Amino acid sequence: MSSTAEAPSEMDILRRIVEQDQEPFSVDTAQALLRLGFGEADRVRIDELAARNRKGELSPIEEEELSNYVRVGQMLGILQSKARRSLKEAHRSKDNAG
Amino acid sequence: MSSTAEAPSEMDILRRIVEQDQEPFSVDTAQALLRLGFGEADRVRIDELAARNRKGELSPIEEEELSNYVRVGQMLGILQSKARRSLKEAHRSKDNAG
Repeated sequence: MSSTAEAPSEMDILRRIVEQDQEPFSVDTAQALLRLGFGEADRVRIDELAARNRKGELSPIEEEELSNYVRVGQMLGILQSKARRSLKEAHRSKDNAG
Repeated sequence: MSSTAEAPSEMDILRRIVEQDQEPFSVDTAQALLRLGFGEADRVRIDELAARNRKGELSPIEEEELSNYVRVGQMLGILQSKARRSLKEAHRSKDNAG
């Protein structure tokens, strides 16, 4: 109920956008969204930042970089979670139809 | 070239994810992405926050909320910008084929 204690996060906001449309994504759209992901260079960089973070070696700018990576990953995760559910539903209706 | 002065933003990171795949989105996927947007309640809230922001009336938590809205809007914008380009390309190839 409260609208005060903490600001709605980017994740909260994106989740509302993605979930307000009850319609599942089409199979084609779901697959396109599931193909989105960090490229090789970004994955190497994330691993490097995460390893150095565990040793407490990150500068403030690197901490921000790491948390930007984490947030983008979470945002993608919201889209991909609906994509996965959409594929499951599509499978189920196909099974039922057959 | 520099990797120091400022952390790559969420937008920088998402743009790399979206642009690394040179393939355009399918028409179906592009249209699904262009349908994503803030719902009525969020739009009312954004207008309210923006109006009060212009008068310098936002609390720190409300400032964070507004900037979360802005960032989610920018992230959607990155996906939708590729979606729009994809639709244009699809149109162009249809015109050329016809």
